Amino acid sequence: MTTPAHVRIFDTTLRDGEQSPGCSMSPQQKAVMARALAELGVDIIETGFPASSQSDREAAALIARDLRETTLCVLSRCLAGDIEASAKALEAAAKPRLHVFISTSPLHREHKLRMSKEEVLEATARHVTHARRLVDDVEFSTEDGTRTEEDFLAEVIGVAIAAGASTINVPDTLGYTTPAEIRALFQRLIATVPGARNVVFSAHCHNDLGMAVANSLAAIEGGARQVECTINGIGERAGNCAMEELAMAMKVRGAYFDADTRIDTRRLVPTSQLLSRLVGMPVQRNKAIVGANAFAHESGIHQHGMLRHRGTYEIMHPEDVGWPASQMVLGRHSGRAAVAHRLESLGHALQDEALDRVFADFKALCETQRVVGDDDLHRLVRGNDDDDGYRLAAMTVSDRGRRASALIELSGPDGAHVAESALGDGPVDALFAALAAATGVDLKLESYHVHSVGIGNDARGEANLSVRCEGAEYQGTGTSKDIIEASALAWLDIANRVLRTRRPQRLSAFA
Amino acid sequence: MTTPAHVRIFDTTLRDGEQSPGCSMSPQQKAVMARALAELGVDIIETGFPASSQSDREAAALIARDLRETTLCVLSRCLAGDIEASAKALEAAAKPRLHVFISTSPLHREHKLRMSKEEVLEATARHVTHARRLVDDVEFSTEDGTRTEEDFLAEVIGVAIAAGASTINVPDTLGYTTPAEIRALFQRLIATVPGARNVVFSAHCHNDLGMAVANSLAAIEGGARQVECTINGIGERAGNCAMEELAMAMKVRGAYFDADTRIDTRRLVPTSQLLSRLVGMPVQRNKAIVGANAFAHESGIHQHGMLRHRGTYEIMHPEDVGWPASQMVLGRHSGRAAVAHRLESLGHALQDEALDRVFADFKALCETQRVVGDDDLHRLVRGNDDDDGYRLAAMTVSDRGRRASALIELSGPDGAHVAESALGDGPVDALFAALAAATGVDLKLESYHVHSVGIGNDARGEANLSVRCEGAEYQGTGTSKDIIEASALAWLDIANRVLRTRRPQRLSAFA
Repeated sequence: MTTPAHVRIFDTTLRDGEQSPGCSMSPQQKAVMARALAELGVDIIETGFPASSQSDREAAALIARDLRETTLCVLSRCLAGDIEASAKALEAAAKPRLHVFISTSPLHREHKLRMSKEEVLEATARHVTHARRLVDDVEFSTEDGTRTEEDFLAEVIGVAIAAGASTINVPDTLGYTTPAEIRALFQRLIATVPGARNVVFSAHCHNDLGMAVANSLAAIEGGARQVECTINGIGERAGNCAMEELAMAMKVRGAYFDADTRIDTRRLVPTSQLLSRLVGMPVQRNKAIVGANAFAHESGIHQHGMLRHRGTYEIMHPEDVGWPASQMVLGRHSGRAAVAHRLESLGHALQDEALDRVFADFKALCETQRVVGDDDLHRLVRGNDDDDGYRLAAMTVSDRGRRASALIELSGPDGAHVAESALGDGPVDALFAALAAATGVDLKLESYHVHSVGIGNDARGEANLSVRCEGAEYQGTGTSKDIIEASALAWLDIANRVLRTRRPQRLSAFA
Repeated sequence: MTTPAHVRIFDTTLRDGEQSPGCSMSPQQKAVMARALAELGVDIIETGFPASSQSDREAAALIARDLRETTLCVLSRCLAGDIEASAKALEAAAKPRLHVFISTSPLHREHKLRMSKEEVLEATARHVTHARRLVDDVEFSTEDGTRTEEDFLAEVIGVAIAAGASTINVPDTLGYTTPAEIRALFQRLIATVPGARNVVFSAHCHNDLGMAVANSLAAIEGGARQVECTINGIGERAGNCAMEELAMAMKVRGAYFDADTRIDTRRLVPTSQLLSRLVGMPVQRNKAIVGANAFAHESGIHQHGMLRHRGTYEIMHPEDVGWPASQMVLGRHSGRAAVAHRLESLGHALQDEALDRVFADFKALCETQRVVGDDDLHRLVRGNDDDDGYRLAAMTVSDRGRRASALIELSGPDGAHVAESALGDGPVDALFAALAAATGVDLKLESYHVHSVGIGNDARGEANLSVRCEGAEYQGTGTSKDIIEASALAWLDIANRVLRTRRPQRLSAFA
């Protein structure tokens, strides 16, 4: 039995990721993210491109003082000034790496660099040598490598190895290649380039055609032992290989790839969510691994299968990647078995006839409501409409631009009414403060998100909140024509669940 | 020279896509989407699962009356009642197809079906035969096919072909396989199963490990001539193969795959946006092909290359998929060349010294603002802060829950002040009505989206609007601690651009 090969995870969230539109980060934000990446277990963090901005120089230096165990890397063009700026930015680093790149493809040589093949070879030798004089650990990249004549690509790589590069990265800069192509390319380069067996080959795949993860995995099959990737797959255009997908593919299919990483996969979801919050760029619901739906099951057939054996519709567990648990989302597609199971877990062990009635009411409710929550199920079991949580009775919000006030009236669990008002930076801030005062529930807001649903007269706003409260995480949703009201409903959706956990569960009349 | 093989596009947005959490559609919404799919050029549309709900039966019948040229398909389990409900739902269809499936993997047989191999074979023969008696065009699927013993999988497929199925779909239900595995699997099945060469093999890949597109393409390399996919890759859990990525990979790499589709790729982005609006599920910015960043370039190196030759950083053009054009997003990572190029296209051909000054001001602005718009550039060229557009001077919004009023005051282009008030369904509705009255600009809202950016004290709301106005599309962004104010800023961002197009461009003092 052989030991699986170790594949190094090179994270470029703070460089390739950060340079994509809308993802700029301050040095302080980068430092927060770098710490999370180190805890996640990445081997190398690329922190920026020092020659490009003061902000990148500060970030590199800040992170270098902070993280002593992780290799820290910065990017340089084949320019003496770039390389010197990079070395200076990493002065304080315990494990510095200089990453030097040059374009090798015909289109880039002709139109971008305006250099001949000979000039590219000469620049490679000169600047890798320069980098090696300043720092021991040097990585060299052939930009647009997958669209380069293969014999020339091999020649450039040979020169870089001879000049002292110990990591050779062959980027698929435009996301152009296919798994079969890139696997064969890595196999041939490693077999034929002089010195290739003494260095680490690395893949850097972009996702323009949706194949970044599959191409990175195919490069590993071809012998790559480093993969460059980003959290949530952010990066230029359609982004880079998504680390969470790569790491889980290697874990789930470990025997197939005969290779592993040092990633603590249970930190993938928290790290993804930290990045989304820092740059304000949420992932879509159906994003693999870290999307809200990645482990959600709504259809009756899938829920039925899941209840009998998780393996029927799960090749990995949500807990493995840091989610609380699989979500059985109850909605129009859900069957009786899933509804009965959820009711049982809520303390309602219903007999056949009672279950028939509740299931019929459930189906009726699904005609007007997309997702049926636990609160709704409790109400259906009780067979009447008075919820035991707070409901919004009236709301008046006044907003004069960053000076806003909210007055809310709630009808409480036992018919009681409560009214509160509060001021805030904006209407939502004021609203949430008033709701907190009225209910006595203190929710710490982690993310807030409103979008329009439907078109034309059917259009309405859906508010989604993520909060922390008493050590637990909650998500809540509210829908209304009025986004402020939708926000209030989402807040109350969560607060009522928090309140319910505080008191002994009322047993079902049918139990 | 051979003709490229035709690969059929089987769209299951309305079935597998629609059954994922948050994606439910009414029969009317499905009919709107089906029309868009037909215009896009898909070969087969799966409209639902009639046995599961009245809504799916209505949708199937509604679409069957509407679309006469596209094959319409519905799903059935191996149950006589399902198949009869399906045939009835398609009674009015010009080109009906029945899709019958059964699970074949050991885990599904044991835990979900509780059936032996023999029982699965017997059910396959019986129900495919039944379906064929009702409708000529029958597709058969082996659920969890990629985790099935290969000899048994081949046996089941042989039985289905003998019973009259003309399309054989082998789903990777859990997104478990790899490109190399699925290509070899299709090759072997097509080579060995009796009758396989007379039917169409189909792939249905899920994206749990991020490989759905690459696996679908590998299946085509292995001989598949139908691919099941969805718009935006929606579907159970992490979703299905994203049609836009598959179609563009086959177009960009047509010579490699030696196969093509009938998709009108210029309709991909509009179709994606229609689905996002219908179900309120936006794609992430870095989504391939249809994400807002998919063709955006911010970094100086990329912008510089793009200005010299588009091919340096584009393997396809945004126009090919229905975007207006590549976005050169100007921000902290942008270089002097890109800023100069944008200024020129705005009518400001600056000389060296003037350009130096504007570029320095541009870099300073980037320290506080993520993205620098054309308005900002015009202002930087003028060298002072008075914009020639409307600015928000004061705002008072009052919201009593779906009955809201807004009073806004704007300072106008020439120092003039204008105030207007309006009522609306919610604060944003009222606000936009007041802004329209004040500026005389009528924006038709296509999507509205607010999310929180940053964490802690740094947190603020970013509003994003998409609108249509005078035949053109616009996107606008506004940021503030107050989401209503952010919405007003986003609206004015667009309105000022609309107004600018109406008057003759003021020439630069430096021109």
